[in-house]
Amino acid sequence: MEELKKTVAMEALSFVEDDMVIGLGTGSTTSYFLKFLGDRIREEELEIYGVPTSHQSRLLALEYGIPIRALDEVDAIDIAVDGADEVDPNLNLIKGRGAALTMEKIVEYRAGTFIVLVDESKLVNRLGEKMPVPVEVIPAAWRAIAEEIEVFNARAELRMAKKKDGPVITDNGNFILDVKFERIDDPLDMEIELNTIPGVVENGIFADIADIVLVGTPQGVKKLER
Amino acid sequence: MEELKKTVAMEALSFVEDDMVIGLGTGSTTSYFLKFLGDRIREEELEIYGVPTSHQSRLLALEYGIPIRALDEVDAIDIAVDGADEVDPNLNLIKGRGAALTMEKIVEYRAGTFIVLVDESKLVNRLGEKMPVPVEVIPAAWRAIAEEIEVFNARAELRMAKKKDGPVITDNGNFILDVKFERIDDPLDMEIELNTIPGVVENGIFADIADIVLVGTPQGVKKLER
Repeated sequence: MEELKKTVAMEALSFVEDDMVIGLGTGSTTSYFLKFLGDRIREEELEIYGVPTSHQSRLLALEYGIPIRALDEVDAIDIAVDGADEVDPNLNLIKGRGAALTMEKIVEYRAGTFIVLVDESKLVNRLGEKMPVPVEVIPAAWRAIAEEIEVFNARAELRMAKKKDGPVITDNGNFILDVKFERIDDPLDMEIELNTIPGVVENGIFADIADIVLVGTPQGVKKLER
Repeated sequence: MEELKKTVAMEALSFVEDDMVIGLGTGSTTSYFLKFLGDRIREEELEIYGVPTSHQSRLLALEYGIPIRALDEVDAIDIAVDGADEVDPNLNLIKGRGAALTMEKIVEYRAGTFIVLVDESKLVNRLGEKMPVPVEVIPAAWRAIAEEIEVFNARAELRMAKKKDGPVITDNGNFILDVKFERIDDPLDMEIELNTIPGVVENGIFADIADIVLVGTPQGVKKLER
């Protein structure tokens, strides 16, 4: 599994050119990409800036020697590279297992080309088949939102932390509800519906935003395009 | 003007009954309501709980002796009472001059009856005539969102603080963009559009949510219903 992640992360490097501003995703596959990107910047003396999507990617960028810029310091983002928890045949995604979905969506929505790195196990026929949809919420509203979400025939669970007591706190200081749907028929519609509930900051459905998905398989890297 | 605010706040008291849970809005008119509510709870020994929508309303509730509960401690909110910056003929609202729009919308959306207190000067033919729409945003995304908003033929300005250096920080730790539209044709549509931009936490268009608007006029209080 780690070898597949490395292979697909290495493949993503082929999209990197000098003078780019690159959105830096979050998660284990992306971490390999950041390491390889840092190596390449150093070896080829590239003039590249990274825009982190989380504390994690910011700390890794510092560690790997990728110069970083905040989102409001750059005029545009050329490419963004990130993982995903599920990918459907139209390249709609579920993201947010790492709780970084809000800043990821902010940065990736702005990217000229958004490249997603996954292994085969993340490909599904329909979003929500295996994974719940993470929803970032204002803490005071968590219970109200969990109740609202029942109208979608879904069940919301407050995500609890492992290395602190109580709920997970996002990089923005909010809670995460993991929402298990019976079925998601129209991802774009559900993405908008969830964001319309007062107190929802952002949700983990990324519809119509991925441009390229690189899929790691034992036979090599498959490239899916929208 | 202060007399009008007091008159309309007093009128709102007629909707209060024993054993209610009441959403406590934010702002100057609502502040009079909270004072009168505290008096009445004490005089009539009512069993009432308030759910604050801001630090301001929480502090005033403490000062006026209104027992408070957090939103996730109550099963339902019977009524909510709050002000507004603009009210159109369909009782759609612009709110958020006090930067408390997110928690206000969370609480008022859940209320059985949402009662709005204004004076005549807040009535407009079309939302956005006089006031910009406040939009609460994740700080890192402020510039990206300000640029996105230009597609609506609107101009966004980062709200700066008066009693601290730099931008206003909301009760949730975010920024406020004040967005001046050329025109808002469909408030509900624009409310959803704004919330769909990644990094927007909530916006100050409150479409289809007010049940009753009490309007203070020199001739007395007018009651508008949807």
